[in-house]
Amino acid sequence: MSYQGFRGAGIRLKEEQVEHLQSHRTELLGDSLPAIHAFDKAHAVMLTEVGLLSREHGQAILRALRTMEERGVAETRIEVGGGMHSGEHYLVSELGTEIGGRVHIGRSSGDLIEVARRMTVRSHVMTLLDSLHRLRGALIELAAKHDLSVMPGYTHGQHAQPTTLGHWAAMMERSFARDCARLESLWQRLNLSPAGAAIMTGSDFALDRSRTCELLGFDAPLQNTMDAILSHDLEMEISAVYAVCGATLARIADDLFLWSTTEFAFVDIPDRFCGTSSIMPQKKNPDALEDVKSVAGRALAGVVSTVTAERGPTGFPILERRNTQDTLWAVGRDLGTKAGDLAEILSELTVFEDRMRRAAGSRWAQVTDVASAIVNATNLDWRTSHQVVGLFVRLNEEAGVTPENATLGSLDEAATQVTGRPSGLSPDSFADAMDAVAFVKRRTIYGGPSPEALAVYRGEAEAELTAGREWLAAKREQVAAAEAALERAIDALLS
Amino acid sequence: MSYQGFRGAGIRLKEEQVEHLQSHRTELLGDSLPAIHAFDKAHAVMLTEVGLLSREHGQAILRALRTMEERGVAETRIEVGGGMHSGEHYLVSELGTEIGGRVHIGRSSGDLIEVARRMTVRSHVMTLLDSLHRLRGALIELAAKHDLSVMPGYTHGQHAQPTTLGHWAAMMERSFARDCARLESLWQRLNLSPAGAAIMTGSDFALDRSRTCELLGFDAPLQNTMDAILSHDLEMEISAVYAVCGATLARIADDLFLWSTTEFAFVDIPDRFCGTSSIMPQKKNPDALEDVKSVAGRALAGVVSTVTAERGPTGFPILERRNTQDTLWAVGRDLGTKAGDLAEILSELTVFEDRMRRAAGSRWAQVTDVASAIVNATNLDWRTSHQVVGLFVRLNEEAGVTPENATLGSLDEAATQVTGRPSGLSPDSFADAMDAVAFVKRRTIYGGPSPEALAVYRGEAEAELTAGREWLAAKREQVAAAEAALERAIDALLS
Amino acid sequence: MSYQGFRGAGIRLKEEQVEHLQSHRTELLGDSLPAIHAFDKAHAVMLTEVGLLSREHGQAILRALRTMEERGVAETRIEVGGGMHSGEHYLVSELGTEIGGRVHIGRSSGDLIEVARRMTVRSHVMTLLDSLHRLRGALIELAAKHDLSVMPGYTHGQHAQPTTLGHWAAMMERSFARDCARLESLWQRLNLSPAGAAIMTGSDFALDRSRTCELLGFDAPLQNTMDAILSHDLEMEISAVYAVCGATLARIADDLFLWSTTEFAFVDIPDRFCGTSSIMPQKKNPDALEDVKSVAGRALAGVVSTVTAERGPTGFPILERRNTQDTLWAVGRDLGTKAGDLAEILSELTVFEDRMRRAAGSRWAQVTDVASAIVNATNLDWRTSHQVVGLFVRLNEEAGVTPENATLGSLDEAATQVTGRPSGLSPDSFADAMDAVAFVKRRTIYGGPSPEALAVYRGEAEAELTAGREWLAAKREQVAAAEAALERAIDALLS
Amino acid sequence: MSYQGFRGAGIRLKEEQVEHLQSHRTELLGDSLPAIHAFDKAHAVMLTEVGLLSREHGQAILRALRTMEERGVAETRIEVGGGMHSGEHYLVSELGTEIGGRVHIGRSSGDLIEVARRMTVRSHVMTLLDSLHRLRGALIELAAKHDLSVMPGYTHGQHAQPTTLGHWAAMMERSFARDCARLESLWQRLNLSPAGAAIMTGSDFALDRSRTCELLGFDAPLQNTMDAILSHDLEMEISAVYAVCGATLARIADDLFLWSTTEFAFVDIPDRFCGTSSIMPQKKNPDALEDVKSVAGRALAGVVSTVTAERGPTGFPILERRNTQDTLWAVGRDLGTKAGDLAEILSELTVFEDRMRRAAGSRWAQVTDVASAIVNATNLDWRTSHQVVGLFVRLNEEAGVTPENATLGSLDEAATQVTGRPSGLSPDSFADAMDAVAFVKRRTIYGGPSPEALAVYRGEAEAELTAGREWLAAKREQVAAAEAALERAIDALLS
Repeated sequence: MSYQGFRGAGIRLKEEQVEHLQSHRTELLGDSLPAIHAFDKAHAVMLTEVGLLSREHGQAILRALRTMEERGVAETRIEVGGGMHSGEHYLVSELGTEIGGRVHIGRSSGDLIEVARRMTVRSHVMTLLDSLHRLRGALIELAAKHDLSVMPGYTHGQHAQPTTLGHWAAMMERSFARDCARLESLWQRLNLSPAGAAIMTGSDFALDRSRTCELLGFDAPLQNTMDAILSHDLEMEISAVYAVCGATLARIADDLFLWSTTEFAFVDIPDRFCGTSSIMPQKKNPDALEDVKSVAGRALAGVVSTVTAERGPTGFPILERRNTQDTLWAVGRDLGTKAGDLAEILSELTVFEDRMRRAAGSRWAQVTDVASAIVNATNLDWRTSHQVVGLFVRLNEEAGVTPENATLGSLDEAATQVTGRPSGLSPDSFADAMDAVAFVKRRTIYGGPSPEALAVYRGEAEAELTAGREWLAAKREQVAAAEAALERAIDALLS
Repeated sequence: MSYQGFRGAGIRLKEEQVEHLQSHRTELLGDSLPAIHAFDKAHAVMLTEVGLLSREHGQAILRALRTMEERGVAETRIEVGGGMHSGEHYLVSELGTEIGGRVHIGRSSGDLIEVARRMTVRSHVMTLLDSLHRLRGALIELAAKHDLSVMPGYTHGQHAQPTTLGHWAAMMERSFARDCARLESLWQRLNLSPAGAAIMTGSDFALDRSRTCELLGFDAPLQNTMDAILSHDLEMEISAVYAVCGATLARIADDLFLWSTTEFAFVDIPDRFCGTSSIMPQKKNPDALEDVKSVAGRALAGVVSTVTAERGPTGFPILERRNTQDTLWAVGRDLGTKAGDLAEILSELTVFEDRMRRAAGSRWAQVTDVASAIVNATNLDWRTSHQVVGLFVRLNEEAGVTPENATLGSLDEAATQVTGRPSGLSPDSFADAMDAVAFVKRRTIYGGPSPEALAVYRGEAEAELTAGREWLAAKREQVAAAEAALERAIDALLS
Repeated sequence: MSYQGFRGAGIRLKEEQVEHLQSHRTELLGDSLPAIHAFDKAHAVMLTEVGLLSREHGQAILRALRTMEERGVAETRIEVGGGMHSGEHYLVSELGTEIGGRVHIGRSSGDLIEVARRMTVRSHVMTLLDSLHRLRGALIELAAKHDLSVMPGYTHGQHAQPTTLGHWAAMMERSFARDCARLESLWQRLNLSPAGAAIMTGSDFALDRSRTCELLGFDAPLQNTMDAILSHDLEMEISAVYAVCGATLARIADDLFLWSTTEFAFVDIPDRFCGTSSIMPQKKNPDALEDVKSVAGRALAGVVSTVTAERGPTGFPILERRNTQDTLWAVGRDLGTKAGDLAEILSELTVFEDRMRRAAGSRWAQVTDVASAIVNATNLDWRTSHQVVGLFVRLNEEAGVTPENATLGSLDEAATQVTGRPSGLSPDSFADAMDAVAFVKRRTIYGGPSPEALAVYRGEAEAELTAGREWLAAKREQVAAAEAALERAIDALLS
Repeated sequence: MSYQGFRGAGIRLKEEQVEHLQSHRTELLGDSLPAIHAFDKAHAVMLTEVGLLSREHGQAILRALRTMEERGVAETRIEVGGGMHSGEHYLVSELGTEIGGRVHIGRSSGDLIEVARRMTVRSHVMTLLDSLHRLRGALIELAAKHDLSVMPGYTHGQHAQPTTLGHWAAMMERSFARDCARLESLWQRLNLSPAGAAIMTGSDFALDRSRTCELLGFDAPLQNTMDAILSHDLEMEISAVYAVCGATLARIADDLFLWSTTEFAFVDIPDRFCGTSSIMPQKKNPDALEDVKSVAGRALAGVVSTVTAERGPTGFPILERRNTQDTLWAVGRDLGTKAGDLAEILSELTVFEDRMRRAAGSRWAQVTDVASAIVNATNLDWRTSHQVVGLFVRLNEEAGVTPENATLGSLDEAATQVTGRPSGLSPDSFADAMDAVAFVKRRTIYGGPSPEALAVYRGEAEAELTAGREWLAAKREQVAAAEAALERAIDALLS
């Protein structure tokens, strides 16, 4: 009987599988082919080293896998078919079943796909972290450059208080710093080796799990072989970390998108990130920002599909996972790309500082400090002072008077209505309290928007970013070292 | 300046767009290329008929589009690029801008993509309905064949009452009948024409919206041009109808999956829908059922991504939609395929009727009727009778006595403990009440599991299914008639 | 043994249930208490009429239930406990088990909760439809009032083309009309009676399902008793229809929210729908709009929880449903309230028409018609004309020239760069093409924004709304008639 | 003008707010009232210490807040109304605006709600961790007790390989250990103080953020005041960590639920966690397990509502968050309760070891090792050996032969069909390979199911659990120390 993969009709089952069901479809494995290839090599090395493969068989297998690399790993594997079992398919076709049929000793689809998934996500996470570091770098720079670019801060969509573009950038950087922290925490659970767990009980062959672990750059073998294959909280966590990161990327995109409207006109993004229209000749559409928001939506949906795929008793859902992981992988890749786009957009952002500054004080955002000023000047209680200023704003709005034309007289009138006496502010202290730039400068409190406070921030943020970059560099080095060790081990066996 | 599509650098924008952003990517348009092609033709016909294209230009354009059909619509469009604008790209490259640049008169990306989306989904819906009709047919047959295949019904995962496989099949058919009703209701909102709405205001060119509508097989033009392009509740409804249908498909798959376990062993599905394992030689895995459940999970996630894509003010999200619709389309297609698989699986299902029947009475599922029997025999109130039987079950379970060995004596003992006197049942009425098959036969109530009640069901269900098939046939005819009318109109213009 | 509800320790089970688990918690039944009460009455009437309850027992039960109404149905039921079984608890405590223990003959928690759920949702749907009708009425009026209130339409967040507030209102009304259609379609599946299905097989007692159906205002009994209790696609559909409706409510809220910003300042909403701040005295926050958006988010999450609750084989999930339905009910209620709020807000909306009109032409939104004008004047192909105008816009933007100051000369310059000759427009046709109001007036196409087209819309919309109101009135009448019939039946039995 | 809270009509706004909108509803604040109270006290202490409140005013306020504690914090706050501002409402009503109106100096609804949210979640997280520790403890014990309770392991719902209940318990414990790690990681981002950030820019009053931070038990003040109030990735992470934890709780519930079916009958759970039926007297329903699964579904939906609530530009969504956080809080609480239920259920679980052991080898799960045995005996390649055994299984299944009756002869027959020669196994090695218990004992590989491997596990797991318990104890101590410090500071100021 000629080789037909392990699910030929006539063995365990009598019919060939319906074509559209074939569960070892190479196209579902997308990004994971390099990881599958690495595991094929590491498994063969370990088997040979412990004697489960004879040196001769081991050499034939490893030599053939190196030949595959010359032909192109992805192309060859897609051509021979078998998906995650494409290594076996290839080896059997090259070397016959007698040799090729030995590569899978002590292994199952289970650890194959789990090793490949973890290595694939590991690679996505490293790329995403790199993009986030660039994005944070761009935000730290923006914060420094615009530490006195005063603009309105918003709550409920309304002007709330004056702040600065720098303060906003620092906020965004802090959010992405948390995403980095979540990814680093995830790494502790991600970079562990399922290899040797086979389908859940490990093997009665005397495999060396530690050796395979080491050759694939993992930190340690997973403690429980059933857990290694049949627990899938890790993917849920991955999907969730992506969704949270996506949501913050979407937020920054939403801010820039809003500020790019004609009505706000605070910023402009480079043409290469924009599209136009086939009918409206004037259109400059901030396509890149919409693309960011798309990924966020897909990332949220990815949590639902990932968690839903796992519903049911242990070991019941299997293909559900395989059928949904491409979403998770696509989201992982796209987040990296989009974070990179945003880093670039922010570095080249055109900022209309004048419009921002003018807007900052144009709709009473500064008047929190008028209430403070009254408290400071007269020891009036805060709540009454707040009500005085509330009435002051309404009276002026009703009269069509803008903040720049509002008078101390109108404040005193409001104060009199509320308290029976004028505000107690001097013309100077009133003018100072109505100045949006002064508002910001007064905020020297830790974490506040004043340039001094932002300088403190910068020091802390740069140190943190440097530490994050070093962390990532160390992880990359670990993975690269494992790759090199694997090649050296193959060289040693082949020599 | 040579033609570069409508977003060449140097016109409205100065830079070429970043490659990974290009929003008119043909690969995002997947299934919709035939619809885009049809709209290109119908638009050109209408423009020529109303005189917005000269007859000469119209003929050149229509002739070229027919030539494209000879070359292969999808291949040619992918080759010339431009995504939904591939028609214009092709025509410009074939006929020059002077002629090809006229095809887009009075049209925008807006109505192009909306027309294409509706036609694409229309096609998915017709295929899905056809699969659901086949599935319902298979279930009606199964219901007839197994109208006395007694089995346990379950609530809370526990044996509840005896029922039949036929009653279960009828329940499932009723669920899918509702899916069909939802799809028919959706059709009323789906099969309306956005053509001529351009990007939201229609056009100042004197387009004939009714003519394009007719040539594309729509029922009527959408009433409001802004609504036609910028409202997207329709996609949400589509995603939701898919998710609901997917959930019922998942339910039937879950039932069959459970019944395929060694522990239940009620049914067996054909080998061609199963996989095996690369390590465990004995495995027969019901892959097809897991695939069904996968689609359900993705369909639910599709609601989240579809609704999330639309968040924001009118006209703000655009690319979000384009980036998520492939999920919706994939779900639409896959539901059709999976419903078809289930129809086939059910038609060839191996049913272990003996095991089912034995299980039906093996764990006290029949004892609801022991309580009824006591009420009927003694006019004891229901609640007390229910308690008597509850105690009877516990006493027997504690003694390790199974239902088939349980005695009237033990019932009388329980009755005495609760009421102070024996149950009042005769040995015959006790035996009858303990018979799971008799339980089912007594259920002649409308909608119940007895063969008589199921025969009533069958009549009603077959009539409904026939009506559903006729509905679908009429819709298919309408679409086919429009396709033919479009070709005739082209013939007329070309002659 | 004294009555302790049907799950007393010592009967089927030995221990009392852990308190926080008690699955018949009245607090989970919220809005459904009136429906439970009605079913108790209708069931007792039917049992008495068919002789399963003696006339004497039936009278005692019905009399007691009427007494409960005097005491207050909700209060009494919460006091006696037992949740959906509070009727039995009450009757047993009032009349003893000998009589009260008979009310549940032929019934189960299954049909109790399903009847109550359908009646509860039926009531929510009627209220929601009523609110949506009011909202649509307000939008039709707004459309009429603002049929020439020109404003910018947006795509990708950028000015796209001039349209009118009336056209926008009509679009929104069309969206809600679809929500109404979905609710009417849902009604066909909702208003069917599970009564008599008991837990899945109906009953061996000779119940009259049609009679109970009739007394509760349902259209017909559900065809399959298992389906009536163990299929739950209906709730999924309900959750989905709510989510879609919520998304459109959120969209209108998002539009109004954006237009309420200082930067847009197109509209202002009444103070009673707004909040202020405890620190910022100037704040006027459009709270009501955020509340609408909240409901939309919860409605989307409701789809996930409703669908997820049902995962698993038939009859396995039961409490999952009970634990999540309060979300669904809250969403149903809140949608009605929020749609009502929006109706009121729109009726009293302050519209800053001048700002809208000025914005409409301030950022080149009108230039689609400059391209049309060139095509019409010179028979230049559309694409080239479009490119001419694209360049015209960029040249002016780069020169800081706004649309109102843009000259025909600059258009001719752009035309020359692209085509080698001037645009061919006369000063008059250029001026007309640059006029945003004229742009709108030209859109007389079916569904377009011109006042003429809107007048056509109004006729169609009003007719549809009237039909919708009549539909709802008929359904309300049907329910009221059933309520009256139930009381008459009780009167007849008691006399 | 008498005090009416800060949003009285006649100040900033002219109308009273619509009642159902009132955004400072105490009922939305549920679990957070104690945290709000603590912040009121800590803020007043800090203000007094830095001199922003006079000693006299500070004393009056602190004394009144202590009086409130005597009356009952929750009751009093609900009575005075104002939600998170109930402290101010109370103080104003007790002390007049002149004093009570000072408590809010330098503070806003923003930091009030953020401080309260973080403290509330902190408390939920501590309770949840405690429950998870108990659950892990119960699983470690179960693993030890059942380290040779052999049972079938499942993939695709089918018997895969023999394993043990102990190995399963260890897997589950490993999953919950990861949940604990995620909660500990979350803590780093959770336990930071927003106090003093006010609404986004901090304050121009000279607040001491570090002091308030310390008095509330936080680790440090948040670095950026805008980030402290307007970034909400933290809630998303919380919701996600809950959803992941919920999914694993649901998995263990699903396993126990399945194993509680009549068909599996591997385990039985205590009666107090079960319900029965109002119609089916025999029912013992594992209610508690369904309740666990309910929480998982709501937790997943909670991710959707939490992330969706935050969509939009920075500072635009505010009430969306307030309207959805109760879901998040309920999920946090319920996870703790459900994890506790599971700990109790597992500790008292009845295990039917005989049924498990018999099932383990009843459907060929052991035959992976028949293939290994052939490889070991004959050096046949793995793949061919696997096919031999696959055929062996099918031939026996077709002949109706069960594993315990399968003969070496039938294996040799299969081997001959595939390879042309018998299997090469001796009767002893065949018998050993067919022994499910021996299968498990051979799995001494790291992480495998043999008792030796489980003993290694136990050592590692106990050490980890102890570390986790110490971590939690330290955090609890930190919080308790802060509470004591706050009381001491009040004492000092009052003395």
